[in-house]
Amino acid sequence: MPSKPYVRDPSAGKKPFYVGVDLGGTNIKVGVVDSNAKVFYRHSIPTEHDRGPDNGVERMGRAVQDAIAALKLKPKRDVARVGLGSPGTMDIPHGMLLEPVNLPTWRQFPLRDRLSKECGLPVAFENDANAAAYGEKWAGAGRKAHSIVLLTLGTGVGCGIIIGDLILDGEHSHGGESGHVLVNPADDAPRCGCGKTGCLEAYGSASGLIRHVIERIERGAESVLAQRHRAGEKIDGLAIAEAAEAGDALALSAIDETARWLGIGVVSLMHTIDPTMVILGGAMTFGGARHRLGRSFLERISSEVQRRAFPTLAKNTLIRFAQLGGDAGFIGAAGIARLEHLRLRPEGLPSPKARRRS
Amino acid sequence: MPSKPYVRDPSAGKKPFYVGVDLGGTNIKVGVVDSNAKVFYRHSIPTEHDRGPDNGVERMGRAVQDAIAALKLKPKRDVARVGLGSPGTMDIPHGMLLEPVNLPTWRQFPLRDRLSKECGLPVAFENDANAAAYGEKWAGAGRKAHSIVLLTLGTGVGCGIIIGDLILDGEHSHGGESGHVLVNPADDAPRCGCGKTGCLEAYGSASGLIRHVIERIERGAESVLAQRHRAGEKIDGLAIAEAAEAGDALALSAIDETARWLGIGVVSLMHTIDPTMVILGGAMTFGGARHRLGRSFLERISSEVQRRAFPTLAKNTLIRFAQLGGDAGFIGAAGIARLEHLRLRPEGLPSPKARRRS
Repeated sequence: MPSKPYVRDPSAGKKPFYVGVDLGGTNIKVGVVDSNAKVFYRHSIPTEHDRGPDNGVERMGRAVQDAIAALKLKPKRDVARVGLGSPGTMDIPHGMLLEPVNLPTWRQFPLRDRLSKECGLPVAFENDANAAAYGEKWAGAGRKAHSIVLLTLGTGVGCGIIIGDLILDGEHSHGGESGHVLVNPADDAPRCGCGKTGCLEAYGSASGLIRHVIERIERGAESVLAQRHRAGEKIDGLAIAEAAEAGDALALSAIDETARWLGIGVVSLMHTIDPTMVILGGAMTFGGARHRLGRSFLERISSEVQRRAFPTLAKNTLIRFAQLGGDAGFIGAAGIARLEHLRLRPEGLPSPKARRRS
Repeated sequence: MPSKPYVRDPSAGKKPFYVGVDLGGTNIKVGVVDSNAKVFYRHSIPTEHDRGPDNGVERMGRAVQDAIAALKLKPKRDVARVGLGSPGTMDIPHGMLLEPVNLPTWRQFPLRDRLSKECGLPVAFENDANAAAYGEKWAGAGRKAHSIVLLTLGTGVGCGIIIGDLILDGEHSHGGESGHVLVNPADDAPRCGCGKTGCLEAYGSASGLIRHVIERIERGAESVLAQRHRAGEKIDGLAIAEAAEAGDALALSAIDETARWLGIGVVSLMHTIDPTMVILGGAMTFGGARHRLGRSFLERISSEVQRRAFPTLAKNTLIRFAQLGGDAGFIGAAGIARLEHLRLRPEGLPSPKARRRS
């Protein structure tokens, strides 16, 4: 059943508005955000990715137009630009999807320009993890930070790096793929989703956590999870989190181990980027600051950082939970649209000065 | 015996000129560079660091003035600014030395402002590794690259990261301390010069190479180096390089092992920064592209990168030797002075436009 969009009176918003689109393998989230990063509209529709990119881009274009219409805004006059965060791989400068793992039929597709045509507005194109990082920096946990590294912990370990106004896209649109820094060079290190071995993601993700639990069960560890595994039930991140909350020793120690590896990865990032703040988001943060398990997870990561980082960085680098949840992607995409607008200001749109005069 | 400075007629140079200072524990290098990164003056004097920072900064100030006088240039009119690359630790925005390991009596010293007073010109202050990286990007191996990571291989592993015009200083002046990314998380990993264990520097530096050779000798490996070690001779990087060039199997395999670890570190940097080019400099490059040993060292690093990096990056990221040798530091410092000048253009100095008119 399609949910109804969240709509809020835009008359209090600071113009121009920006539309942010967060394209995922399952859902497309569309939001309208004002120049101060306030959200005035939010809606989620299915991606239907198996129906191909033409269908997808039409659906996105319509969703953008619906959003603008729902707020009774005028495109171009009130809404300067659209931002799109997309999964990869991609070519950011050319706005191309290349080989997107979660959108397998959308290969070699000129997504940015097609969406721009579809919705009649210029589109800023970005990697979804970088867009989420920009969202947290613009409007979330990192809004007072000069530079941030966002790690999004879920099935994998996503990463986005923002330094001032620089979004670290990288030369080949692979900047901030830090889920794949090497934390274990051993030849028998576990295999990562990327096909290589020893990546941070192979340890710090839900997949890594589950693998660790199952290995220990198969070596004879006792746990409520062991009983469920032997009964043929699937062990997922949620099951492990629930067991940990109930005090299960295996689940607790596995989460500890995951946190320890994340601490190792965070130290390598601190010694390279030296950000103001490292932000942890995603489902694998175990409820974040509001839950005991989330807090102890963060403490375990921090204690590994304390042990391994340069003392100045161990003392001064902030490590915090993300604040925008599932909105980070579209808010960040809208924020990147704003950045591009402020840099490029297209002829089609009057400058704020001209608007004030008229 | 003090060497004579290299001096070249500056009339062909593009004004304004910049003075670059590369402060080291042993020597201070001073160079004058024009707006196109051409070197017109170069001189090296002893640091005399044990005589304290007041003596050091006076010597630096005089060396800057001597350089300008030798070229018969006028400070301010012809020479816009001085750039200073310094070892750390430091506070870059405030121009402070904090706890410089190689200048132990220069603690908590306001080096930038003191040098500025001493030589009567504004001073741009930077970490020496970052300055060298900027040098290679402005005028060396990376001059056609958008972004570079420079690894300077010597006793330690220095690193500087430049993305466009952004010098990655970091929030706490620890950006690009990537010699200390973790490549081995094991509790028994070798100790690094920084006091922690498992850092890239503990494997990829001359110190790491020497440790590896001695460990293998003590476990019974046969080698010309083993005989020298048992005779009480000191095994250093040069001795290992010479043994390798003479075909010594232990030396060759130890250099191979060093290269393998460097490849692991390079992959982690590529997956985080995704630079156009990774540049390798320093004495531990075994003569670089001009020597067989240097070329095979680079090949071994590249083959580890091929094995472990994302295919796109393995295929497209350039890995090259540095080109400026020991000049990289002062050329880069001068280049950073130019960047600051173009950004900040002080009132004391007429703009290029005003100069053309006059």
